[in-house]
Amino acid sequence: MGSVIQLINNGGVSSAKGFLAGATYAGIKTAGDDVVDLGILHSEVPCTVAGTFTQNKVISPTVALTKQRVVSGLASTVVANSGCANCAVGEQGLVDAQEMTALTASQVGAEVAQTLVASTGVIGVEMPMALVRQNIGNVTLSQDGGNTFARSIMTTDTHPKETAVSVQVDGRAVTIGGCAKGSGMIHPNMATMLAFVTTDAPVEKTVLQSSLTNAINLSFNMIDVDGDQSTNDMVLVLANGKAGGSGITDGSKGADAFQEGLSYVCTELAKELARDGEGASTLVEVTVSGAKSIDDARIAAREISSSLLVKAMVYGRDPNWGRVMMALGKSGADFEEASVDVYINGIHIVHQGMGISYLRDSVVSSMNQDEVHIGVRIGDGPGHATAWGCDLTEGYVIENSAYTT
Amino acid sequence: MGSVIQLINNGGVSSAKGFLAGATYAGIKTAGDDVVDLGILHSEVPCTVAGTFTQNKVISPTVALTKQRVVSGLASTVVANSGCANCAVGEQGLVDAQEMTALTASQVGAEVAQTLVASTGVIGVEMPMALVRQNIGNVTLSQDGGNTFARSIMTTDTHPKETAVSVQVDGRAVTIGGCAKGSGMIHPNMATMLAFVTTDAPVEKTVLQSSLTNAINLSFNMIDVDGDQSTNDMVLVLANGKAGGSGITDGSKGADAFQEGLSYVCTELAKELARDGEGASTLVEVTVSGAKSIDDARIAAREISSSLLVKAMVYGRDPNWGRVMMALGKSGADFEEASVDVYINGIHIVHQGMGISYLRDSVVSSMNQDEVHIGVRIGDGPGHATAWGCDLTEGYVIENSAYTT
Repeated sequence: MGSVIQLINNGGVSSAKGFLAGATYAGIKTAGDDVVDLGILHSEVPCTVAGTFTQNKVISPTVALTKQRVVSGLASTVVANSGCANCAVGEQGLVDAQEMTALTASQVGAEVAQTLVASTGVIGVEMPMALVRQNIGNVTLSQDGGNTFARSIMTTDTHPKETAVSVQVDGRAVTIGGCAKGSGMIHPNMATMLAFVTTDAPVEKTVLQSSLTNAINLSFNMIDVDGDQSTNDMVLVLANGKAGGSGITDGSKGADAFQEGLSYVCTELAKELARDGEGASTLVEVTVSGAKSIDDARIAAREISSSLLVKAMVYGRDPNWGRVMMALGKSGADFEEASVDVYINGIHIVHQGMGISYLRDSVVSSMNQDEVHIGVRIGDGPGHATAWGCDLTEGYVIENSAYTT
Repeated sequence: MGSVIQLINNGGVSSAKGFLAGATYAGIKTAGDDVVDLGILHSEVPCTVAGTFTQNKVISPTVALTKQRVVSGLASTVVANSGCANCAVGEQGLVDAQEMTALTASQVGAEVAQTLVASTGVIGVEMPMALVRQNIGNVTLSQDGGNTFARSIMTTDTHPKETAVSVQVDGRAVTIGGCAKGSGMIHPNMATMLAFVTTDAPVEKTVLQSSLTNAINLSFNMIDVDGDQSTNDMVLVLANGKAGGSGITDGSKGADAFQEGLSYVCTELAKELARDGEGASTLVEVTVSGAKSIDDARIAAREISSSLLVKAMVYGRDPNWGRVMMALGKSGADFEEASVDVYINGIHIVHQGMGISYLRDSVVSSMNQDEVHIGVRIGDGPGHATAWGCDLTEGYVIENSAYTT
C-alpha cells in the first residue's frame, strides 16, 4: 500500500529543486571549530507555506511574526539563528525580529513579507543585532548548503538532524527534505522545536497545512525528552512547485502520496530529536495497540515514553515493568488491567496484567543497544500509536544544571 | 489570625491520645541495621476515618480494600508494609490484602472491617505472605511506637517524616500528628504517597473528609518529585475523640481550628517529602501571586516547581529565569507576559516580563542553601498559591536506573 518512498543519500533541507541554503558564524554563540549560528534558507520562487507553533503563553516575537506571515500569504525565505531566543526582552524583541527579516530579504532579493524568522537559545537576553548586521552578508547560499544551515540552528544538539526522500506524486518524482534541532525542552504538544521542511511538489496552501498537521500528530507530537515546551518552537514547510505538474489538491491521490512522504520525513526527524535528547544514550520506542481509540493509544504511548521512571529504567537496562503499568494507569487511557500485555524488544514479560516467567538476562541483554522497544497491548480495540523518547541519564542533569554559565 | 498551633517535640503518628504503633522486620525488604518493614497503627477505640486515594487506573488491591472500608464506616487499625506493593499480581493480591487485615485484627483485637491496609514497594511481585504470617506477631504496640511505624513504610526515603501539633479546638487542646513516606513517583494529583494522620479530636466523618480534602489541596497536591503517580498512594486520617468534648461539626469555629491544624500537619509532611525526593539536595518553594484565580495560581506554581529544567537550574545554582517564564507560559494560567515579576530568594530579577540588572553572584550565593524560594507575581489578581518540589540531581538518575536490581 502507498507510494514508494526513496531515501536520498545525505539529503536535507536544500535537496528539493530550487532551494538554497547557507550559514555563517556571527558570534552569537561561543566560537569553536565549524560553529555557525546564523543561517538562511531560500527558495528561488515564492512558496506556499504552512506552519505549527508553540502553545506556550510566553512566546518569542519571532514566533508571532512568522506565524502572522505564514497565515497571510506566500513565503520564500527563512532566517534562523541559535544562541539567543529573542524572547522575554520586551518590545525590542519584535523590532529586532523585523529587522532580521528585512536584512535577509534585502540580501537575497526577497520580499520582506515573504521572509520568516526563527530563533533558539537563551531566553531573556536581547538579540545582538550589531553582530547580525555585521555578519549576515557572509552567508553564501548554495544547493548543498542544507547541512550548514542545519548546523546553524543547533544548541545542545550533538549533531545536525537532516533527511530527504523522493516520492512519486501523480506520476512525477518530488523531493521532500528537512532539518530540525531539538535536545532539551521537547514535549509532545503541537510544534515542539525548530524544524524546516521543503518540497518542490506543487501543494496548495490548505493541503499543505492539513498535511503538516497530520504529519506532526504522528511525529513531533509523539516525542518527549523532558516534558517542557519552548517559547520558540515552530515547524515550517515550504512548497515551491519546481517539480512541475498541476497543483496537489485536497483528497486527490497525489495528496495521499505527498502526505506519506511528509509524514516519513517528519517522523525520521522526530526520532532523531528523541535519540539526541540531552544526555540521552538510547532511543525508546513505545507502541500501544488494542486501545479503544487512537486517542487512547496516543496518550498511553506518550505517557509511558515520557515517564521519568521508565526513562531511568531504560538507562539502567532494568525490565522493571511495574513502572510501565504505573505510567499506563496514570495516562487516562481506558483499559482493563487484566487485559494488559507488555513486551520489551519483542520478549513477552507481562500477560493479562501479571508478570510471567522470562529469562531476565535475555531481556537485559536485549536492552543493551541504542534502541529499546516497549510494546504494550491493552485490549482488543483498533487504537494503535507509537511514541518515542530517550533514556534519562546523569548527562541530562549535568547539562541542564549549568546551561547559561 | 486563627488558632495557636504548638509543635510537639518529636511528635508523630502516635502522639494523639489513645493511639499506639509499632513495627517489626518481616524480611520483605533487604535486611539492615534498624530496618523494619511491617507496621501496625492502632487506636484503642474506633475512629471516624477519611481518606484520599491514587487516581491511577492501575491500583493495588490494598487501595481498593481500604477505600471501601473507609467509605463504609469506622476504622481502628492500619497495617502497612514496605518492600512489596502488592500490585499487578492478579486476584491473589486482594486475597493477600484481606488476609493481612485479618491477621492484624486478630492480633490487636480489632474488627476486620475496621482494619485498613497499605503497601508500598516493587510492583508485580506477590506479597510474601509466609513472612507476614510468621512475623506479624513480633509487632509490639506502644504510645511511642510512632517513629518505628514511620520507618516501616520507608522505601527509598532517607529518613522518616513525622510531625505533630497541639491545637486549641473549642477551648480544649487536641493533638494532630502524622507520618508519611514518599521519595519517587510523587506528583501533584490527589493522594500522592502514603501518609497517615491521627487525632484525638472528636471529628464527625463528613467534616473529617472535607477537612482532609482541603488540607491535601494545600499540601500533598502541591508537591512534585518526578511527575509520576503511584498505584498505591493513599492518605488516611483517623479521629478517635479521646480529647473529649462534643463532636466538631461542619461550619463551627472548632472545625476551622481543626482545619488549620490538619493543614499545618499535612503541609509540613508534604514539604518533607519534597525535600527528601530521590537524589534531591534542595527544597524548592514556588509562590505564585497576583493570579486571576486560585486555580491559575495553583497550576502555575505546580508547573514551575515540576519543570525538569527549573529543577536542574536550582541544582546548578543558576538563576536562568527564562526557564521559569517557559514553565509559567506552558502552565495554562491566564496572565500577560508584561505583568510578570520574578524573585529568587527575595531578590528581584525580572520586572514586567524582562530581566533587570542584578548582582548575579548574590543570587547564586543566596541559592547555596537547602531551600530555594522562587516568587512569581503574574498580575494584580487575588489568586495566590505555593507549591514545593526538589532539585534534579545525578542522584535521582542513579537511584532510579537500578531500583529492582
